[in-house]
Amino acid sequence: MRVIGVIGGGQLARMMIGPAIELGLELRVLAETSDSSARDRATSVGDFRDLETVLAFARDVDVITFDHEHVPTEIIVALEEAGVAVRPSSAALAVAQDKIVMRRLLDELGHPLPVWGVAETMADVTRFLDANGGRIVVKAPRGGYDGKGVAVVTGADQVTTWLNQGPVLMEEMVDFSRELAQLVARRPSGETAVWPVVETTQANGVCAEVILPAPTDGGRILADAAELGRQIAIDLGVTGVLAVELFETTDGRLLVNELAMRPHNSGHVTIEGSVTSQFEQHLRAICDVPLGSTVSRHPWAVMVNVFGAMDTGRYSRLTQSSDVKLHNYGKEPRSGRKVGHVTATGTDVVDTASRARAVAENFRTDI
Amino acid sequence: MRVIGVIGGGQLARMMIGPAIELGLELRVLAETSDSSARDRATSVGDFRDLETVLAFARDVDVITFDHEHVPTEIIVALEEAGVAVRPSSAALAVAQDKIVMRRLLDELGHPLPVWGVAETMADVTRFLDANGGRIVVKAPRGGYDGKGVAVVTGADQVTTWLNQGPVLMEEMVDFSRELAQLVARRPSGETAVWPVVETTQANGVCAEVILPAPTDGGRILADAAELGRQIAIDLGVTGVLAVELFETTDGRLLVNELAMRPHNSGHVTIEGSVTSQFEQHLRAICDVPLGSTVSRHPWAVMVNVFGAMDTGRYSRLTQSSDVKLHNYGKEPRSGRKVGHVTATGTDVVDTASRARAVAENFRTDI
Repeated sequence: MRVIGVIGGGQLARMMIGPAIELGLELRVLAETSDSSARDRATSVGDFRDLETVLAFARDVDVITFDHEHVPTEIIVALEEAGVAVRPSSAALAVAQDKIVMRRLLDELGHPLPVWGVAETMADVTRFLDANGGRIVVKAPRGGYDGKGVAVVTGADQVTTWLNQGPVLMEEMVDFSRELAQLVARRPSGETAVWPVVETTQANGVCAEVILPAPTDGGRILADAAELGRQIAIDLGVTGVLAVELFETTDGRLLVNELAMRPHNSGHVTIEGSVTSQFEQHLRAICDVPLGSTVSRHPWAVMVNVFGAMDTGRYSRLTQSSDVKLHNYGKEPRSGRKVGHVTATGTDVVDTASRARAVAENFRTDI
Repeated sequence: MRVIGVIGGGQLARMMIGPAIELGLELRVLAETSDSSARDRATSVGDFRDLETVLAFARDVDVITFDHEHVPTEIIVALEEAGVAVRPSSAALAVAQDKIVMRRLLDELGHPLPVWGVAETMADVTRFLDANGGRIVVKAPRGGYDGKGVAVVTGADQVTTWLNQGPVLMEEMVDFSRELAQLVARRPSGETAVWPVVETTQANGVCAEVILPAPTDGGRILADAAELGRQIAIDLGVTGVLAVELFETTDGRLLVNELAMRPHNSGHVTIEGSVTSQFEQHLRAICDVPLGSTVSRHPWAVMVNVFGAMDTGRYSRLTQSSDVKLHNYGKEPRSGRKVGHVTATGTDVVDTASRARAVAENFRTDI
């Protein structure tokens, strides 16, 4: 494995560029547009929903992987039928791409989930509402991200337009104390590696902040999350990085919220925080070479997303960032857009978080 | 400053690519050949000694910097006269490019040097030999690197061919206990930053191994080296990274050996070892934005160079490297060629060094 093809030119592909160079791999990106975040390695620009475009891109690469999970299953299957190594595979991705399929399978496997159901009619919604306290979460089975395709509802009439488009996933409102994410890597020959579970904070349904490791008072959370994540990666045959988003409930249980079969926002903190970043690890995993150490380089690492603008023209802002690392996604400014992130590391979690927040906040005020 | 032009496509330019991406800078490289180490960002391929080629490359960039110091002074001056921001400047580079000019200036400034002299005739060599124990070092003033252009001689007749090409630098054989290197960054507005001094080990005149920080028994070496490096950067008006190669003499003095005004092999260890790597810092410095923290991420970091081959086809070798980071320069194998390096980090210097050496040794046996 020497030439890696990434479908999608977003910031995840962009953040693979550096590690690929150091490992001596050739990274090629099929980007949506010529100004995509990963434009530096965009060897092709085209539509990932067009089979011919994708097959042409895949022709001379050793392995195909993804920047996002929106590539249609039939395209991925066609790649596999054409003999292309695709990691993760279409079978694994099918589970991550459809929230109903995912819950059905995880339930069968005995993994802990929020109470869930599928609605095809308004009567289904009403029944689920009645059984779950009159307030539930509904999710579109496919295509959602960053809080899109998710809503909290209190009446079946609020789901009418959703139901017109097909079955809807329903979930109880989980009584959680916080959200966590377990990053796992697995390679085709079976080896797995887990990072310490991280704590994630969402704002308006979008990841805002991540702490590595999730603060604990010495309980079993770290070990339990690692074991759960590892087992899901094995059960689903994931190759590459898997992010398992989790709820920690007020009564101390872990419930699986969502899965992402690729490097994930919750793992950006590993760039500075860990001996091996999720981006290097994903490349190692899909190339089926031994995985790197996931040991932390610092007692604490805190990542804060930057929304709106991260203009290099405003580099006077860098005065605040001598020990906070910047990651600029090279995106045009737009209100609310995830345009970069910053990571601080240190020996005290409160101090580390406040340093990261101060720098991110400064950028955030740009737009 | 947003678009950076690097003259030279070697591994130093290559290792700037990742940090440039994260900072949101556009890096362009004028490479010697299309398969140069930094080929991923080689927007031009051509001869850095050709003024038209260099001027065309520099046309749309905000600042020009260098992968090596072999660009002729007249080319650099012509760039400056054309209004291009060049960092370091031609005035600073002139000192690094000519070992006699460098020694003359450092002597005037009062910086500590080995006893030195300039030979234009065999009689000059004989006199210097007689005054310095009959065994001296001679160096070609320009163009040397990695032990090339340096020889130990015991008779003037051994310098005949050198003298035919012009004046030769002569130096006493320094009675040193070890070699050190002080990395410094300085930006045009004057801010400087120093990393802890590193210990370097040479093999056949080529850097083989670097330890961050240089082990000490609590003496003044760290502070003295930092102060010396910083003062030289200021005195010479360096912009960007400066490496000051030093001798630590058996009687405890520091003497300046060589200068390099760019990221340097002795600083590769900062990629994992420091909050800010020399490559990110060089970019910050030449863009004149605030410098990053040079605090170490680990008690110890040890870098070992890999010579010969570092073939990604041999990735089974990676089994040994779970916690040792690889840096592959993407070069064709050739006996003795510097093709990559590995860095280990840890809490015990002996263990850290032995892990790095084991992985490097494994690669080294390839050719």
